[in-house]
Amino acid sequence: MTFIEGGVCAAAGFRAAGIHVGVKTNNVNKKDVALIVSDVPCSAAAVYTKNAVKAAPLLVSREHLKDGQAQSVLVNSGNANACAPEGEENARRSCRAAAKALGIDERDVIVASTGVIGQRLPVEKIEQGVEKLTPLLSTDGSHDAALAIMTTDTVKKEYALKTVIGGKTVHIGGIAKGSGMIHPNMGTMLCFLTTDCVISPEAAQSALLQAVQVSFNRISVDGDTSTNDMACLLANGLAGNMPITGPGDDYDAFLNALTQLCTKLAIDMAADGEGAKHLIICTVSGAKTEQDAETLAKSVISSTLTKAAIFGADANWGRVLCAMGYSGVEFDPDTVDVAFASAAGRIDVCRRGRGLDFDEDLAKKILTERDVTIDIHLEGGEASCTCWGCDITYDYIKINGDYRT
Amino acid sequence: MTFIEGGVCAAAGFRAAGIHVGVKTNNVNKKDVALIVSDVPCSAAAVYTKNAVKAAPLLVSREHLKDGQAQSVLVNSGNANACAPEGEENARRSCRAAAKALGIDERDVIVASTGVIGQRLPVEKIEQGVEKLTPLLSTDGSHDAALAIMTTDTVKKEYALKTVIGGKTVHIGGIAKGSGMIHPNMGTMLCFLTTDCVISPEAAQSALLQAVQVSFNRISVDGDTSTNDMACLLANGLAGNMPITGPGDDYDAFLNALTQLCTKLAIDMAADGEGAKHLIICTVSGAKTEQDAETLAKSVISSTLTKAAIFGADANWGRVLCAMGYSGVEFDPDTVDVAFASAAGRIDVCRRGRGLDFDEDLAKKILTERDVTIDIHLEGGEASCTCWGCDITYDYIKINGDYRT
Repeated sequence: MTFIEGGVCAAAGFRAAGIHVGVKTNNVNKKDVALIVSDVPCSAAAVYTKNAVKAAPLLVSREHLKDGQAQSVLVNSGNANACAPEGEENARRSCRAAAKALGIDERDVIVASTGVIGQRLPVEKIEQGVEKLTPLLSTDGSHDAALAIMTTDTVKKEYALKTVIGGKTVHIGGIAKGSGMIHPNMGTMLCFLTTDCVISPEAAQSALLQAVQVSFNRISVDGDTSTNDMACLLANGLAGNMPITGPGDDYDAFLNALTQLCTKLAIDMAADGEGAKHLIICTVSGAKTEQDAETLAKSVISSTLTKAAIFGADANWGRVLCAMGYSGVEFDPDTVDVAFASAAGRIDVCRRGRGLDFDEDLAKKILTERDVTIDIHLEGGEASCTCWGCDITYDYIKINGDYRT
Repeated sequence: MTFIEGGVCAAAGFRAAGIHVGVKTNNVNKKDVALIVSDVPCSAAAVYTKNAVKAAPLLVSREHLKDGQAQSVLVNSGNANACAPEGEENARRSCRAAAKALGIDERDVIVASTGVIGQRLPVEKIEQGVEKLTPLLSTDGSHDAALAIMTTDTVKKEYALKTVIGGKTVHIGGIAKGSGMIHPNMGTMLCFLTTDCVISPEAAQSALLQAVQVSFNRISVDGDTSTNDMACLLANGLAGNMPITGPGDDYDAFLNALTQLCTKLAIDMAADGEGAKHLIICTVSGAKTEQDAETLAKSVISSTLTKAAIFGADANWGRVLCAMGYSGVEFDPDTVDVAFASAAGRIDVCRRGRGLDFDEDLAKKILTERDVTIDIHLEGGEASCTCWGCDITYDYIKINGDYRT
């Protein structure tokens, strides 16, 4: 398996584009609509936010994906089309515009939105924009599409890889956005994946669910699960491998590759959390079950106090134990070891639930690196899990104290 | 029922004091040990944190309260004695010192600590301090005791009231501390309550549980449930009312008064959240059950994004709906109305799940007041609940980025 360039256009038969059409009113240089299209119809799979308040485009996409088939993805940033007047109608109008420009059925268009909640989507701008967008579709367009789905993101998230499945070279690519309101639950922030793998809609759905579970569902920026989270996968089958329709070696190979791609995108998302200066990697080992390990690690990366301590490069491991303690997982605090690690080294700060004397200068040095690992071991069993988060900073509050204007 | 002065010394037969003994090393002007004592043995009740990692003093206090009796409370700030070497032994040594100085049984001393986790309690300083503290005990000492239990608190929390129960005047008083790591779960931050009511340990425990449930358990500062949360109640019976031993009018009168006192302390705690500039009052009405209303309101006040919006005086009601959506409560988003209110007025921003056009200048004015109400109505039933939180500010991060030093 090799990571390559090309993003969502790395797989055969996919083109993409992204432009500014005016949904983002404050900056004409910021792209705000992206279009991805396959030359042929695709097996399609998606997972959505578990938030009870779901944005209109999710409802429309879910309806369009009932038949397990799609051919295109239309995304706008700058407006979430959630709790907005005429939300569903405007999501449908967006699909209709893309379908018309592409000459496909509107039910084969997946639609997604991200941005401010509660304001009417300026759908007319999207309708006009799609006409300008279609001629720009190209196999080099992933970069522009990745830019067009960004909101407060500071870097684009775009990866692709190739791997061999059943003797054939298969490509998988993806773009994602996500920076704030990130605490995915089954869905994720926006993530669009493409592949030329031959795979049935059912197998694609199953692989997507499994991959999301161990990647996007293991990150948190601020504990807020968005109304618009969505990850989808289009598989156009142009790689010509033996069709994957259920469990087996080929399914496992595909799942493994998909998981690695999603994990890359998820880690980038956590590292690019709004205002974040640090990526926090929390590893829990020695737990009774993987679920326990995940719950413990997620509680630690979600703790506002732990996030503030990492921001301040303060080796305040007591907050780590505290966050484990209120996670709901049963464990014996007197078996817990905690260490901090980064490119600058590693330092043990707690053994068997009690503080160790440690070199505060070294600890500070370790915690000043961008990527900081909180390594937790307990004696409850053999299971382990890693989750990813970020620190909370003045900039997070600045960004979110005045997001709508 | 009338609120009066006197705090934990308002009830007959209680004395208190607070001094600096050196647990807080960074400022000799900051008191760090408090002692409260009753002239006679008391019915005693307590609730503790549900955090699986419990501080040593909680374990010792729980043991001492098994017989439902206590006479004194010893508290230190500056060190939590949680995950600390010799934690339990040092908590016992603290009790022993207080018991010796007061001439009572050490099992009648309740002990509590708050401050940094993971460092050895400088118990020698407390032992020496208690000897200096005992001669200072007085019926005017509540104020000093309230100061001595503060950590990052900016104001002391101290209230008392008198009410008539069974024809006799009964007093209840309390002091509390709490500013960060506040998201109580059954227990609370430190809160010490005294009364001269004649009440059995069982009835006192039941009343305390009920009062805590609708006061301290309805506030949140940062979603972090501490290892040291504890609320306790000493009832010395000097008011001479007919003993309260179970349900009835007198029990209800006592519970009502206790609840009002705890609510005052809880609101002060939320308003004094670390770095907070705003108290956020979230009222949910029209819910199916009170539990649903509470879960919804608590999700809103706990949302980092909502807290950041209030900090920025940004009427971003979409985040309110979003937080309701991920609370786990089932409700119909299309029935939700949201309004913001404060001393400066009231403004409707969302009706039936859709944004309203509203006067942004007025909204800004309303949200600039210290106390801001988020008023939510849905059409699910008749139940309602109010919860209290605070905004998240640059100062919160500053305070918590470098808490240990």
